[in-house]
Amino acid sequence: MAGNTFGTLLRLSTFGESHGIAIGGVLDGIPAGLNIDLDFVQAELNKRRPGQSQFTTSRNEEDKVEFLSGIFEGVSTGTPIGFMIRNKDSKSNDYSHLQSTYRPSHADFTYEKKFGVRDYRGGGRSSARETACRVVAGALAKLLLSKYNIQITAFVNQIGPIRLTRNYNEIDLSLIENNPVRCPDEPTALQMMKLINETKEKGDTLGGTIQCVIQNLPIGLGEPVFDKFDAMMAHAMMSINATKGFEIGSGFSSIDKNGSQLNDVFINDNGIKTKTNHSGGVQGGITNGMPVYFNVAFKPVATIMQSQESVNSKGETITLESKGRHDACVLPRAVPIVESMAALVTADFLLLSRGNKI
Amino acid sequence: MAGNTFGTLLRLSTFGESHGIAIGGVLDGIPAGLNIDLDFVQAELNKRRPGQSQFTTSRNEEDKVEFLSGIFEGVSTGTPIGFMIRNKDSKSNDYSHLQSTYRPSHADFTYEKKFGVRDYRGGGRSSARETACRVVAGALAKLLLSKYNIQITAFVNQIGPIRLTRNYNEIDLSLIENNPVRCPDEPTALQMMKLINETKEKGDTLGGTIQCVIQNLPIGLGEPVFDKFDAMMAHAMMSINATKGFEIGSGFSSIDKNGSQLNDVFINDNGIKTKTNHSGGVQGGITNGMPVYFNVAFKPVATIMQSQESVNSKGETITLESKGRHDACVLPRAVPIVESMAALVTADFLLLSRGNKI
Amino acid sequence: MAGNTFGTLLRLSTFGESHGIAIGGVLDGIPAGLNIDLDFVQAELNKRRPGQSQFTTSRNEEDKVEFLSGIFEGVSTGTPIGFMIRNKDSKSNDYSHLQSTYRPSHADFTYEKKFGVRDYRGGGRSSARETACRVVAGALAKLLLSKYNIQITAFVNQIGPIRLTRNYNEIDLSLIENNPVRCPDEPTALQMMKLINETKEKGDTLGGTIQCVIQNLPIGLGEPVFDKFDAMMAHAMMSINATKGFEIGSGFSSIDKNGSQLNDVFINDNGIKTKTNHSGGVQGGITNGMPVYFNVAFKPVATIMQSQESVNSKGETITLESKGRHDACVLPRAVPIVESMAALVTADFLLLSRGNKI
Amino acid sequence: MAGNTFGTLLRLSTFGESHGIAIGGVLDGIPAGLNIDLDFVQAELNKRRPGQSQFTTSRNEEDKVEFLSGIFEGVSTGTPIGFMIRNKDSKSNDYSHLQSTYRPSHADFTYEKKFGVRDYRGGGRSSARETACRVVAGALAKLLLSKYNIQITAFVNQIGPIRLTRNYNEIDLSLIENNPVRCPDEPTALQMMKLINETKEKGDTLGGTIQCVIQNLPIGLGEPVFDKFDAMMAHAMMSINATKGFEIGSGFSSIDKNGSQLNDVFINDNGIKTKTNHSGGVQGGITNGMPVYFNVAFKPVATIMQSQESVNSKGETITLESKGRHDACVLPRAVPIVESMAALVTADFLLLSRGNKI
Repeated sequence: MAGNTFGTLLRLSTFGESHGIAIGGVLDGIPAGLNIDLDFVQAELNKRRPGQSQFTTSRNEEDKVEFLSGIFEGVSTGTPIGFMIRNKDSKSNDYSHLQSTYRPSHADFTYEKKFGVRDYRGGGRSSARETACRVVAGALAKLLLSKYNIQITAFVNQIGPIRLTRNYNEIDLSLIENNPVRCPDEPTALQMMKLINETKEKGDTLGGTIQCVIQNLPIGLGEPVFDKFDAMMAHAMMSINATKGFEIGSGFSSIDKNGSQLNDVFINDNGIKTKTNHSGGVQGGITNGMPVYFNVAFKPVATIMQSQESVNSKGETITLESKGRHDACVLPRAVPIVESMAALVTADFLLLSRGNKI
Repeated sequence: MAGNTFGTLLRLSTFGESHGIAIGGVLDGIPAGLNIDLDFVQAELNKRRPGQSQFTTSRNEEDKVEFLSGIFEGVSTGTPIGFMIRNKDSKSNDYSHLQSTYRPSHADFTYEKKFGVRDYRGGGRSSARETACRVVAGALAKLLLSKYNIQITAFVNQIGPIRLTRNYNEIDLSLIENNPVRCPDEPTALQMMKLINETKEKGDTLGGTIQCVIQNLPIGLGEPVFDKFDAMMAHAMMSINATKGFEIGSGFSSIDKNGSQLNDVFINDNGIKTKTNHSGGVQGGITNGMPVYFNVAFKPVATIMQSQESVNSKGETITLESKGRHDACVLPRAVPIVESMAALVTADFLLLSRGNKI
Repeated sequence: MAGNTFGTLLRLSTFGESHGIAIGGVLDGIPAGLNIDLDFVQAELNKRRPGQSQFTTSRNEEDKVEFLSGIFEGVSTGTPIGFMIRNKDSKSNDYSHLQSTYRPSHADFTYEKKFGVRDYRGGGRSSARETACRVVAGALAKLLLSKYNIQITAFVNQIGPIRLTRNYNEIDLSLIENNPVRCPDEPTALQMMKLINETKEKGDTLGGTIQCVIQNLPIGLGEPVFDKFDAMMAHAMMSINATKGFEIGSGFSSIDKNGSQLNDVFINDNGIKTKTNHSGGVQGGITNGMPVYFNVAFKPVATIMQSQESVNSKGETITLESKGRHDACVLPRAVPIVESMAALVTADFLLLSRGNKI
Repeated sequence: MAGNTFGTLLRLSTFGESHGIAIGGVLDGIPAGLNIDLDFVQAELNKRRPGQSQFTTSRNEEDKVEFLSGIFEGVSTGTPIGFMIRNKDSKSNDYSHLQSTYRPSHADFTYEKKFGVRDYRGGGRSSARETACRVVAGALAKLLLSKYNIQITAFVNQIGPIRLTRNYNEIDLSLIENNPVRCPDEPTALQMMKLINETKEKGDTLGGTIQCVIQNLPIGLGEPVFDKFDAMMAHAMMSINATKGFEIGSGFSSIDKNGSQLNDVFINDNGIKTKTNHSGGVQGGITNGMPVYFNVAFKPVATIMQSQESVNSKGETITLESKGRHDACVLPRAVPIVESMAALVTADFLLLSRGNKI
């Protein structure tokens, strides 16, 4: 019902199917007076665009965003920003064979059972194409955050077994865009690209993890109890297609340590900080001024170029030959999506925090 | 702001500080006509109660819930169910020394900076005592779910390095309450208890993971895009104190597999099912009728019985000696909290799903 | 912030300025499986269209709605319905003189002070042009309601001093579209048209009231306490531009009667009904199965074709000569807007009522 | 479902039935650092209390509010403020005869049909007793508003045909509490009291209107399009029991005037103001700095001390003899309720306005 809207004071509502006329959204709550750098927004969107490198689907979508409202003479007016991206290269014939087929680990089956009706072309609403709208909104949120010097940076830190062993604070984040897999460590990136190519040749796919860092956060973002900063961030990340896990700070590795090892001791170093940052910048659900960092796990892309067994809508066993144009590994293109959702969450909490005190 | 309310159609608002007069809540949206088994609710609450075993804090709270409205002659009336638990054994003197002290990895610092004012007694609003209200509401949600035969079961599957190696479908879930650590495998449970005792003697603490399984779910729960079943579940779990990670189905281990290995093939076995369940019962954010299972990582309890360095509100370095009564490992008592949040999420989606079709 | 979204389960978010690129919206929550009669939607929109008669502004907007998502092969899919209406005949030069002028009883001044930035062309976001999006969404809601035989009908019952003296149940509602003022009583309509013409010649404007009737409502719509059926309806109506009052059932005239005269006695006449309907179909905020009827008061259009004193943004006194193309009386075009908002409220409550009982 | 919660950033959730254990609520969003004057809150509540004068029901409820959380050392902490009022003098035996009876113009019938289950004692949830919680929350909102010098004042301006002919700006608002009917004009008040007494003797009841004025409002409160200041105020007022109409500024009388008469001309008089205030302080849904004023119509109390015909749950015609203790005219006690809802709306918009600009 309300599943297509995200946020409280900064609120994104999106619409659109993979192979319909257009996808788009309404972003309500960007404060008035923000300079909107349209080139920046388009550049962000281009990072998610299909066809940007040999590692991404060859679907050729220009993904040109058209803004319809809420911006006047280059500045936000405080009214909702409507935007739209027309679907151009939507070869929906590629999907006619899926009308009565349930692809393994896709949402064909669940959408059909939930709604009784289904736009089967390319996954319809459940397609990751929808995330382009998140990137548009996220780019606007980033522009707002940049006014407060808050910086959000994500990168690929694992693809299949190939893993970047260093943490966010040990690497040069400016190198992320230096290679098409968006891993800021060149040797690791090369290994990742090699693995993607090999896997793609076998018609198979890969998963991985993305790490996201938020720097220069003010103290005090996040709300008590249910809307903790990390809870909302987990919500945001797990709403991205193909994600299977979320961890913040020391995350799942916290289990291996005792409290005496994991506690972040407070120190006074030109202001109160913590000596370590196992908490990941959040304590009691509220930012403490240290960098927030978290990992998001993505499963391998479900569409493989191998024949698979499945079932059709009559319940008959069938063999499915995959068609269409798909990524062997979605991680590089997911980097701007992770950043965008992080930006939306952070900006919303920033606005909410204005009401903390009288 | 809105941080103390959870849910859309089934909506819980809670209030209360650890050492204030009372904690409580309002649960709005329980449909009319549900028999309310008050003994069941109290029994659920007792599972979370301090002082229930040698493994839990000795704070002696009776935790008797008092229902104030919304139930008439044993049946829900469709109006909000107000409830309250008075704080009885609140030795707030234990905390007077914390008035100007920031305990490591607690929320003292962040709450003070966010709000400027802080009820420093036992963590105030940020205390895990608040979760008792979630258990009351969760028990009511469970009663609703049981009308639809939906069953929610959580258990401890890791404490420190001691791990239950079998999965939810390989163990006898009826054994969970057989031991005070709520691990349904006796030998593992014994190891866990030994480890907790040893760690407690050192004045240290432990973390771990809880696994939760939801069975007999109808197909079609969860909403597209932002309010996916797993996204909302992640939100719910990460809102519980001390959680650091969430993963559903194959979770973080998905990374090590290829798409061809991880895809869940559909079969027709008295209805459409999947041969494997790496998806964890959710595809495209919507339940597919298979069991939902997920893991939640908890960091070790932050309050340790060792002296720690910290900083006071003047920014001066201090040495903190822990007082108060605390668990060395919170996992066993967190089991009913995980179940309760899972029940609230599931019941809310159940009600939302009534609007799916005309 | 959240001001551009309306509804809980059926949720409309709109965007767009009077003289921007487009206006549009996202309607989320239309259940799947509804046949979408596009001609009906356009016909509804045409009732609100400028230039439809001599009594409306000559701005020539085709107001052709383009649906972008959520409908597949003529049927709703349960996913959000995005739509857009391009602004075509937007002579924004007409408004350049208003850049630093505050028109009396318009929102120029308040928007500028609230946001610091203002799209001054034709009122920008505050223009009644935005209501076209409500009519599109309202038409979709009407299609949903018609499945349940619920009928919503509004008509003009007063313009200036000319008043339709009979009540909704004494008139033939099928005659509404017989004349351009949408008053179902021909002699009264003629008087109204005469008055509008006379007033327009003087460069002046008129207000009036619209009555709306909802028939065949199920018993039980509306939620206790804050979201009463009539409270939400008042909210909806008072959100329409230029409205100044709302009354349901006996409304303000209730004051003149005693309880013994105004109480609606229950009778059994093939089901429990009330002998009279002073309540207006709602008791305790919940529909009782009788027709709902209410009146909405509209002030005269603020833009008059006479010179007016005002103040510019520097605080200097100026004389304002009105330009642009405007209605002398907005009531006839407001009829579909009132119906649309009534349909959105009713449909939302219909969906909410599915959760009333277990 | 969500019907028992009101507000966005300042959010009140209430619970409780007329003759249950207690009524109460949770007010979330009061910013931290506000001095909470508990005596003021209780004094506000006393204005609504039954039994305060010969003109109100003799039900003897002390209505002592107990605060349970969110206040520490006399100051708000930014966490939810839970509160409770125990029902003491609840003679529910008075109502046992109503178990299967539908009182005319009460909510007995609609609640039973909606929910299938009904707490029939004294109207249960639909009783106006619930409004005591609004007064507690409203008093807290008033304390917040007083920090910004915003003042909210309501008074009775009509009971039956007896009407205060002067407007809010022509009367001395400090006289309101001088008489038990809360009409700030002594001769009119005396007439009203006489009429109430006469009507009560006949076993009959009276309605009327309350006028509310909000002074010293900042410019810019209210949100575009759906959440206009006046739309939300109408929602709030129409959610109060027994209200039948709402009008702001010139309201329904706007109809009798032309635009040239009704437009509020801007002038510069130590800041931009309007010469007249037909708009009622709101233009385009946003406050313009002039006083906001509006009227709320209340129908006569439905419980009369005369025998009435009705129907029982079997559909049989019965004669109903009223018992219980009831007001002949609820207007004087409704004054603090109107003020409270106005305060909640205003304070919420005040907090929302903090996000208007970057």
